[in-house]
Amino acid sequence: MPTQNFSTELPDDLARTTVQQLVTKAPLIHCLTNQVVQNFTANLLLAAGAIPAMIVEPSEVVEFSSIAQGLLINVGTLTTESCSVFQLAAEQAVANSLPWVLDPVAVGGLTLRTEFCRQLLSLSPTVIRGNPSEIMVLQGAAAQGKGPDSQHTSEQALAAATALAQQTGSIVVITGVSDYITDGQTTYQVTGGSALATKVTGAGCALSALCAAFVSLDGDRLAQVATACWMMSRAADYAALRSAGPGSFAVHLLDGLSVVAQGISHDAV
Amino acid sequence: MPTQNFSTELPDDLARTTVQQLVTKAPLIHCLTNQVVQNFTANLLLAAGAIPAMIVEPSEVVEFSSIAQGLLINVGTLTTESCSVFQLAAEQAVANSLPWVLDPVAVGGLTLRTEFCRQLLSLSPTVIRGNPSEIMVLQGAAAQGKGPDSQHTSEQALAAATALAQQTGSIVVITGVSDYITDGQTTYQVTGGSALATKVTGAGCALSALCAAFVSLDGDRLAQVATACWMMSRAADYAALRSAGPGSFAVHLLDGLSVVAQGISHDAV
Amino acid sequence: MPTQNFSTELPDDLARTTVQQLVTKAPLIHCLTNQVVQNFTANLLLAAGAIPAMIVEPSEVVEFSSIAQGLLINVGTLTTESCSVFQLAAEQAVANSLPWVLDPVAVGGLTLRTEFCRQLLSLSPTVIRGNPSEIMVLQGAAAQGKGPDSQHTSEQALAAATALAQQTGSIVVITGVSDYITDGQTTYQVTGGSALATKVTGAGCALSALCAAFVSLDGDRLAQVATACWMMSRAADYAALRSAGPGSFAVHLLDGLSVVAQGISHDAV
Repeated sequence: MPTQNFSTELPDDLARTTVQQLVTKAPLIHCLTNQVVQNFTANLLLAAGAIPAMIVEPSEVVEFSSIAQGLLINVGTLTTESCSVFQLAAEQAVANSLPWVLDPVAVGGLTLRTEFCRQLLSLSPTVIRGNPSEIMVLQGAAAQGKGPDSQHTSEQALAAATALAQQTGSIVVITGVSDYITDGQTTYQVTGGSALATKVTGAGCALSALCAAFVSLDGDRLAQVATACWMMSRAADYAALRSAGPGSFAVHLLDGLSVVAQGISHDAV
Repeated sequence: MPTQNFSTELPDDLARTTVQQLVTKAPLIHCLTNQVVQNFTANLLLAAGAIPAMIVEPSEVVEFSSIAQGLLINVGTLTTESCSVFQLAAEQAVANSLPWVLDPVAVGGLTLRTEFCRQLLSLSPTVIRGNPSEIMVLQGAAAQGKGPDSQHTSEQALAAATALAQQTGSIVVITGVSDYITDGQTTYQVTGGSALATKVTGAGCALSALCAAFVSLDGDRLAQVATACWMMSRAADYAALRSAGPGSFAVHLLDGLSVVAQGISHDAV
Repeated sequence: MPTQNFSTELPDDLARTTVQQLVTKAPLIHCLTNQVVQNFTANLLLAAGAIPAMIVEPSEVVEFSSIAQGLLINVGTLTTESCSVFQLAAEQAVANSLPWVLDPVAVGGLTLRTEFCRQLLSLSPTVIRGNPSEIMVLQGAAAQGKGPDSQHTSEQALAAATALAQQTGSIVVITGVSDYITDGQTTYQVTGGSALATKVTGAGCALSALCAAFVSLDGDRLAQVATACWMMSRAADYAALRSAGPGSFAVHLLDGLSVVAQGISHDAV
């Protein structure tokens, strides 16, 4: 089983350069995401330097696919109706060579989303981001889900992530106390962050949107996705120092992202 | 007419013990709530120590009913389509002995929700939480609604709350300057809190979700529901001391809930 | 082409008086708005002194039209289904002499919303508020849209705004670095505010809701709409002084609105 020994830290210099690329490009990211986290996702993308847009009507989804620079599909509040919209959006992304990210929220105990997410794998998501349990289920493990939270550690899911990346050609991201980002060959580890992030709804969902923003850039996509995790971890470090609880943490997390986006050294803030 | 003389203060020690029960259990609460308050509701449950999940597709609602530990139904942005989902969820809750809470937002002047909420009473909600006008309408008073805000005081609605509890077997909660929690026999009063809470959308809606979390615990449900109100009031006290307006109040309210959840004495914070 | 020379500053005294009218009336505003910004819109109206309500089911939309004091229609996450609800709401507003505001989010590159918003113009919105590109497209310019952000300055759109106001009889608001509010004859300019507002999703959408609140008052509607922009700008000035980034800016913006609503002099805060 892979362990931390086989993963690499993302160099800070590479991460900082990649963040500046994001800010310069300000990519337009189409977010098809759940009802709970739309506002936070949009604000997080804005704070980081990207531009969010939530477009849901099929005819506009098709039009927007040739305007957007990245796509997020998040199944948190999936319905049979949104399945068909999401399927259409993913197909359009493939047709337009638009990078897209799958966030398989709470796959496992719930049948519709589990089957739908497995089906979407055939459309080759550029990135799949989930918590350890979600990645294990998507790769084929039996469901043990107790709602949206993971029952496993990132390290327990690393073998499944590697296998899933090899099966799909996707970059697979496991987020938890440590984040792992793998293409099945090379694995980055990103550390830091704060347990308070688990008390803010949609922190993971919004990170998936940020992954979509980063893979819209030119360059090495594995490092770009790792940079999304790195940027979020640095912002969480910033926020943890200033917070009295999860309410203020969410506010300072957005501020922290804009501080990182401005290229201000984390040590200095 | 009942007055404050007939109500009892919830003992602080009992409230603190009950909060620790919640934090230990971290119950998974299924929230079927309105579009406006989903994010705040989820964040409030997380801050208090529970785990929110918003699942809306009928097939998943049925599956989730045997996973969740409590259910909230809030009719704020009701549609004919969501009526059938909510009805299904309530029926499943009854079948699975899952406690469930009804939040009858803005019943009165709007026909669909008024009839639907009255119909749901036959499914014996564990708890009904509303503002004074909503409770009076649900109990049978003629509507005088001017949108979502109450036209009456908690004290004016106390007789209706007692009658409604006796008719339905539900615990009925009126929230306002004072909160009253009654099973038709015994009535708790919870005081404190802040008028700023009326300037934060969804504060009441999120309290209903918190009631669903508390009644998932073992023990005396009337005291549990009163503890939900007590926890919210203590968090509001915490927030009011730190806020310059409704924006910062909402942030500090979440922090305050996590402070109370950690068992830190309110006097010390 | 009109320039700043032809516009007038809104007198501070008039603005302050109009804000006090709003606080005294506390108008009930029906918001049919997009999924992303519902929570922020509701909180912003509450902070400013109005009362938000989001009612979406057609039968309740009809009932609520005779209860509400203003209506907002925002097409950010338009669907074919919501088109018919919005159309119905606008027709009811006309029938009930209810003032209503159109926010044509991202018209241009997306066909459904562009055609729908142009069609709604026949129902004579009291106010149309958009960014420069949206106003230019609505008035007839070819689309150059790159998602929700404007590609033009307020000054570039002023001729289109004036023409649109003359064509429709609506008050037209362009928001940007400077805001312009015109009825096609007289134009107010409102300055100040903060670039951080562009990093908060829904700041413009919520301003449209605030316009609906102000035009529910008795008096001169052009000055009322300009006061909505003025109140937002003063709150943004307040927030900019207290913020480390877009997260804290959004929080302080709500506080700032409540400070302005309380009539506290901006110079003193």
